[in-house]
Amino acid sequence: MQQKILIENAAIVTMTEESWIENGYITISGNRIQEVGSGSYQGDRSFDKILDASGKVVMPGLVNAHGHAAMVLLRGYADDLPLMEWLQTKCWPIEDRMTEEDIHWGTQLAILEMLKTGTTCFTDMYFHMDGVAKAVESSGIRAVLSRGMIGFPPKADTAIAESRDFFNRWNCAANGRISVILGPHAPYTCPPDYLKRVAELSAELNVPIQIHLSETAGEVERCMEEHGCTPIRLMEQVGLFERPTLAAHCVHVTDEDLDIMARYNVHVAHNPDSNLKLGSGVAPAVKMLQKGLIVGLGTDGAASNNNLDMFEEMRQAAMLHKGVNLDPIAVSAYKALEMATKDGAKALFLEDRLGTVQSGALADLIMLDFNRPYYYPRHNVIAHLVYAGQSGDVTDVIVDGQLLVENRRVLTMDEERIYREVEAVCERLFK
Amino acid sequence: MQQKILIENAAIVTMTEESWIENGYITISGNRIQEVGSGSYQGDRSFDKILDASGKVVMPGLVNAHGHAAMVLLRGYADDLPLMEWLQTKCWPIEDRMTEEDIHWGTQLAILEMLKTGTTCFTDMYFHMDGVAKAVESSGIRAVLSRGMIGFPPKADTAIAESRDFFNRWNCAANGRISVILGPHAPYTCPPDYLKRVAELSAELNVPIQIHLSETAGEVERCMEEHGCTPIRLMEQVGLFERPTLAAHCVHVTDEDLDIMARYNVHVAHNPDSNLKLGSGVAPAVKMLQKGLIVGLGTDGAASNNNLDMFEEMRQAAMLHKGVNLDPIAVSAYKALEMATKDGAKALFLEDRLGTVQSGALADLIMLDFNRPYYYPRHNVIAHLVYAGQSGDVTDVIVDGQLLVENRRVLTMDEERIYREVEAVCERLFK
Ligand SMILES: [Zn+2]
Ligand SMILES: [Zn+2]
Repeated sequence: MQQKILIENAAIVTMTEESWIENGYITISGNRIQEVGSGSYQGDRSFDKILDASGKVVMPGLVNAHGHAAMVLLRGYADDLPLMEWLQTKCWPIEDRMTEEDIHWGTQLAILEMLKTGTTCFTDMYFHMDGVAKAVESSGIRAVLSRGMIGFPPKADTAIAESRDFFNRWNCAANGRISVILGPHAPYTCPPDYLKRVAELSAELNVPIQIHLSETAGEVERCMEEHGCTPIRLMEQVGLFERPTLAAHCVHVTDEDLDIMARYNVHVAHNPDSNLKLGSGVAPAVKMLQKGLIVGLGTDGAASNNNLDMFEEMRQAAMLHKGVNLDPIAVSAYKALEMATKDGAKALFLEDRLGTVQSGALADLIMLDFNRPYYYPRHNVIAHLVYAGQSGDVTDVIVDGQLLVENRRVLTMDEERIYREVEAVCERLFK
Repeated sequence: MQQKILIENAAIVTMTEESWIENGYITISGNRIQEVGSGSYQGDRSFDKILDASGKVVMPGLVNAHGHAAMVLLRGYADDLPLMEWLQTKCWPIEDRMTEEDIHWGTQLAILEMLKTGTTCFTDMYFHMDGVAKAVESSGIRAVLSRGMIGFPPKADTAIAESRDFFNRWNCAANGRISVILGPHAPYTCPPDYLKRVAELSAELNVPIQIHLSETAGEVERCMEEHGCTPIRLMEQVGLFERPTLAAHCVHVTDEDLDIMARYNVHVAHNPDSNLKLGSGVAPAVKMLQKGLIVGLGTDGAASNNNLDMFEEMRQAAMLHKGVNLDPIAVSAYKALEMATKDGAKALFLEDRLGTVQSGALADLIMLDFNRPYYYPRHNVIAHLVYAGQSGDVTDVIVDGQLLVENRRVLTMDEERIYREVEAVCERLFK
């Protein structure tokens, strides 16, 4: 069914050259934006839904370029701990016990949170991925999914086989809302020979790869000891970068690493809050942007964040690099907004116009109530969104042309049931 | 009138040794907390107001330890600019034009924002302070106010006289909700002789002092050139630290500076977001805490933040120092919460039990709706508040025993009128 939606009386942040329409309208037909115009809409009014955006700002939905959705089950379970203790004594033992059903409910909680806070597309790398894909399908959100692969016995081969199966079952599913890419976890969990096999599979299936790279200083040190080079150089050597690659974190990268990444057009998922919270450091995002790399923003899992709030990541991206570089013009508000929208979509290898509001683009849009003290006076809407805004102001969300959140209520999900089921899952997992 | 309020069915974050009551009640009589108990309230129910806190968390109101409230008028007016260009070409020319009426409306907008986002006490250093004090009085919020003093002609003497007058008129006013302290702006705007006069006035009136210290590297350098020592050492030399002092920022302080501050028990207002956004740097908060300094959190003015959201400062304080120190246990969630509540109250020289929920403390409390995806599962309420929470979840606010915000509506202020008046003020100021 080609549903048609009209949004009118809207202030529109387009993320195109036009950039800003003070009062305009958007028409949606099927899963695409049909027309974007200024002034009041004068055409035929036979729409399935008409949304009055008076007093609201409409903008592209936010794109979360890195995460592990079901880790919301671990939210607040173990904070303020050293990284390895956190992983080994807290996260891993619980994750070992998780069933597909657990991950399905965890992912539903994550999607509920993301939709309500303005994220319309997310990236996932986890396991029992059918449980994830089903939650994506039924909720209506857009996602780029990977079965996380660990290249050591006993599961190394299984992970490759499952990735292939998962690709065959789910790639382009849900009206194209689901893309499947490959997810080798990291160089320290995937030996070089294994990564070569992943690169081959990526070529065979013609899909990109996402991987954690150079997240911590310790990890880079161990790579130097073991392989005599940085993780980035190692990825070049094993041929991974011959394939389209999205590298998460890249906190501890050298200038030479960045040159390699630029040469291969490696995309980056920058996770400022997770990197801070785990004590990993601050990624050189300014240098990445100077080298012309495509940089999206991600929350990482909720165990190290502890939410999936892209407004917070966007704000952090605009604030943090100014402070650590002692440079108040380091990352502008507009650049941070691009990283959270259209650059994020590019980073995920999604189509070019996603993350913008223009005719022909996929209709992934959010509306925010701007009738809040911190949005006054109205000197600059972009600055307000990035520096002063909060996700709680999101009122309506459209993904793929479907209205999923209306006046703060998620139409496709049973909020109270998800809370109950998640508590029941945790009751069992953490006992 | 001794109004009596009962809050029941509440999850209570007490910020005392008890720390956490899963289900309890609070009774308030006049401006004080009378009783805090667990379980359901069994006593006499003759209250003026009974608040059902089912599904909510009750905690101490947040204390904003540094700011310039009326600068909300400049919110979003000039971002992503070098500091001196920002100040000299943007902020100062506009501030020169501000009338008491402008500042009154700006401060009302700021108070509206603070109350709605859970701040029950703020600090101010600005000018035309009668306009600020009147807004504090009528809104019902608590505040520590200073007339900002610049020690150069032509206004150096006026500023001293006005500070004395302002103290006489407003200290302990509004049922004790207003405290007046002295506000010499900074060592680079107040020569040593002037600061000596301020210290004398502080002794005469028996009030503390607040001042900006070592905010930027450039400012410290210039102090070294001019005075042969750091701003902190200079303050010791002029005798300022003989008086109770609240020092804002302290980003560029040496270990020796910190030792001086510890010796004189100088309090610190740490403003992580403002310091980042202006490219000033990251204050050594971990060292400050290790030296035993009392550290509160502040937003600074909205022109460099761009909101007055203490939830964001609290989160930043818990995140940032982990990242820049590569230490995931640097500032715990609980410590950040203390800095935003009871440590903030101490930093402002307010009475000892402010910022806690216990019998006899001033009744400054906030309630948050915890029925949000990012507060599930319920592993740890403190971690959720600090790492996952947002100010938009604040539903009810009590200050000095008076219910000021009920179900998100500010009872003492006319929200729509404030927006209109602020836009009218800006219309004129920015023309
Ligand atoms: Zn990750
Ligand atoms: Zn200040």
